Formats: sequence, C-alpha cells, structure tokens
Amino acid sequence: MKMFNKVVIIGTGLIGGSLGLTLKKRHLAGQIIGLSRKKKNANLAKKAGAIDLVGTSLDVVKDADLVILATPVDVIVNLAVKISNKLKKGCIVIDVGSSKENIVAKLSKLIPNFIGCHPLAGSEKKGAINLKADIFKGSVCILTPTVKTNKNALNKIELLWRNLGAKIVKLSPNKHDQILASTSHLPHAVAFSLMGSVPEQFLSMSSGGLNDTTRIAASDAKLWSQIFLSNRKNLLSAVSCFQKELNALKLALQNKNQRSLTKILTLANKKREKLA
Amino acid sequence: MKMFNKVVIIGTGLIGGSLGLTLKKRHLAGQIIGLSRKKKNANLAKKAGAIDLVGTSLDVVKDADLVILATPVDVIVNLAVKISNKLKKGCIVIDVGSSKENIVAKLSKLIPNFIGCHPLAGSEKKGAINLKADIFKGSVCILTPTVKTNKNALNKIELLWRNLGAKIVKLSPNKHDQILASTSHLPHAVAFSLMGSVPEQFLSMSSGGLNDTTRIAASDAKLWSQIFLSNRKNLLSAVSCFQKELNALKLALQNKNQRSLTKILTLANKKREKLA
Repeated sequence: MKMFNKVVIIGTGLIGGSLGLTLKKRHLAGQIIGLSRKKKNANLAKKAGAIDLVGTSLDVVKDADLVILATPVDVIVNLAVKISNKLKKGCIVIDVGSSKENIVAKLSKLIPNFIGCHPLAGSEKKGAINLKADIFKGSVCILTPTVKTNKNALNKIELLWRNLGAKIVKLSPNKHDQILASTSHLPHAVAFSLMGSVPEQFLSMSSGGLNDTTRIAASDAKLWSQIFLSNRKNLLSAVSCFQKELNALKLALQNKNQRSLTKILTLANKKREKLA
Repeated sequence: MKMFNKVVIIGTGLIGGSLGLTLKKRHLAGQIIGLSRKKKNANLAKKAGAIDLVGTSLDVVKDADLVILATPVDVIVNLAVKISNKLKKGCIVIDVGSSKENIVAKLSKLIPNFIGCHPLAGSEKKGAINLKADIFKGSVCILTPTVKTNKNALNKIELLWRNLGAKIVKLSPNKHDQILASTSHLPHAVAFSLMGSVPEQFLSMSSGGLNDTTRIAASDAKLWSQIFLSNRKNLLSAVSCFQKELNALKLALQNKNQRSLTKILTLANKKREKLA
C-alpha cells in the first residue's frame, strides 16, 4: 500500500538507506530520491535499490510528500532551516536523530508537519555499505510529538513505522532524552572508556566478555561525539549514576565484603533478566 | 588418541562438563568420572555423555591419571588439600580457575604434577545444562607454569589443550592475573555496574547496544564475587584505570570540547579494531 508518492531521504547512511530499502520492499513509497553529503554513499544506496534517484540539490524537496532527515544530529537543524521554505503544503518531515529535545524544539517552529522520530535500530556499523531492509522489524520506534504537533501527520507517521514493522512508543522530547541517556548514550560512553582502558598488548588474552561489552566502541567517533554533546546534561547525570554504582562495587571489593559484592551483582542479574 | 586412562572431573558445570564432552568426542580419555557438590549437575553431565560415572566421594581420585579441578575459584585450594594425599604417583592435576596467583602458589606446594590452566571459553551461562563440546576450539588457553613445574606434565597438558582445539599462551600466574583483571574481570565489573545504574522502567526503550554491553551482567553473582575477590588488587587497579578514562570523557563533555571527545572515541575505535 503506497503511503507517499514522493519521498526524499537526506542522509543515505545506515538508517536512511535501510529506510529507503524497506519502504521499497514494502511498496510504501512511489519515488524515492536520496541525497548525501558523500556522493559515494548516495550512489551505493541507489545501487542497493534503496533510492530511485540521487538528488543533486535540496530543491528536490519541493514536491515531496515526505522528507526524512537521516543525517548526523548536529546538521539536522541547519538542514531544516534550508528546506523549510521549499516544502509544499502538507509535506511531512521526520528526523531519525538520537537526541530529540533541541531538534524538536527548533524544527517544530520551522515546519508545520514535523514529527520527531527515533528508531532504536542503529548499529556500530555505518554507511550505505551496511544498509539492509527490515532492520526496523520488531524494534521500538520512539515518536516525540508535542502539544503543537499536527494530529493527522502524527497518525500517518505512526502508521508508516508500524508498516515498517516497528512498535511505537510516544514520549515527550525531554523524557526521550532522559531515557536514552541511560539506555543508549551511557552504554556507548562506558564501552568507549572500557576499550580505552584495556592495554593494547593484553587484547589477545580476552574472550567473549570483552568483545561483547565493547562492540559499540566500534561506533563512529565523530557521530557519537555529536550525539553525546546533543544530550550533554542527561548523559552527564547518567554517567554520575553509573559512577556511583561502580564506586559501590569498588568499596565492597576494597573492604573484602563478599556479602555486599554478591548483593550488588545479584541485583544486576535480576535487572538483566528483564532486558532479554 | 587416548591420552589418559582415568580422568576425574571435580565440578561438572559449564567448563568441567564441556571438557568431559570434548575429551569423549575426541577419544582422549578412557574412563571419565565426574563429581559435583550439586548431584543434579553431575547427573545432567552423565546424561549429556560428558562423564561415564558419577563419583560419590573424593576417593575416586586414587587411581586417576588426570584430575581436573573445575569448581568455583574459592573452593579449589581446599579441594586440593583434601585430594593431595590420595593421588597416585604421576597423576597430573589441573585447575581451570579464572585467577591464578593464589591457586598456583598453594597447589604447587601440595601437588607435584600440578599445572594451572585458564581456558578463555567461559560464558554468562552456567551449569551442566549448558555444556557443549568444542567450546575450546580456536580459543586461547593460558597455562601458568612456575620454575618448579614438572616439564613432562606441562608438555602433556599443553598437548591436551591443543588436542581440544585451544591455542596455548604461557604466562606467570602474576602476569595472568594482571592481564585478566583488564580483559575479563574489569568488563564484568563494568557490565554489572552499568546494568545496576539503568532504571528498570527504562529497559524497554533500549536496543542492541545495552543488550550486548550487559550480556555478561547475567553471569552468576556468587561465582563472580569470588573471582573478583580472588584477584582483588589487580581488579582494583584496572577499575582505577577505567575510572580515569571515563573521567576524561566526562571532562570533555562538561567542557563541550568536541575535539577532545572525538579524539577519545577515535582512540577507542582504533583499539577495538585490533580486538576483532
């Protein structure tokens, strides 16, 4: 069922490209035009069948029914400024950024039919070379409407994500950023720091534990430094919470307090069961 | 090729049971007798074909050619005291504990043909229910001989692990504990603390990142509190190194220093490439 005639995807990396591929596969879009700062990425996306055409200027948004902003978080606002006066009436714009408060505050003012989205389907892999269809199947997509959000546009985007296989959760932009600081940005900060702290000459003497714990330390450095900065205050709070936990474990270890140590580990065990 | 006529495995959990299963599969042992504090585990191991018989007392070690101590680290020394005067001449004893300094110091004095071993093939899963053959294939097994170690016994155990598919690394017990504090015990401490710090009500809003980073926080709490305490000083040093790394990241974030933040993340990226 075609939901949109013309879709423009700006940023044809892992999420943007995979979105294009899934829209195609599920026949949800007529024509898909992709744009990328890196021409190579857009060409790869076209080759993979994720987009029909490589756009050459932002003017392609003029007659779009849906514009998807799938660039790194730090350029989304500037991009929105540039396209906002080109859009036709009724065009819906979504972003897929990892932090929402700043983006939603600014884009809501610029674009009447803007809906903030965050599909929890990223990976440490990036770029059009890694895109694949159906990465959204069974995943959670968080929508961050505000009191000003156009209800029709919201319903349509909710249906779009459902059609892509995602489960919808609606949160305020503020709440989204607070939660994701704990569940995504903190684990990344911890994984990067853990990787940084293990001496290189020891790496061959490791097993699955270190490997899994640091998988996301392979995530793109520039992209993630921008995400960290875009959710700075919440991430700093989450890091402080984590530091308290680690200090409690350290204290039990310093005091040779096996009972306290086992209690800390047991609580973590119980919470982990709820994650799976 | 049969290497040992009679093998006794004390502790038929994930590692002990999987060892039995692999010894059987590769025809390396004549008879295998298994003992466990939990009768259920030994019976499960027998049912899985990992052992031929369930032993009822430590006296079964009397005519063993190889005794494998595969219990939690905190009981290995006591167990060695109990069996040391029962062993026949020439019997080789190995342990598979996650820390080596204390165990090797004590067992070297008690048992003439003792070789400390640490196969890096554990998992967050435990117990005979999860055992499987060939978990050692392609993995690293660290041997920790000392100047007093019997060379013939060492050569035989080295060959045994090679026959099980493992790659051998030899380290002093002290160096082993220093390295494993960084590559295994620290990632566990970090994963437990990370799991502890994420509010339970946020867990449904997470993706693969948190999941992988905290997989080993599902590891047995009692077992790991004992491992942590058995390598306390090295682990405390490793935790301090990690805390310094995290503080550097936090400082860059507090100062909105994107350049410094990207640099920290890039260094972690580069090290992570060497892990895979």
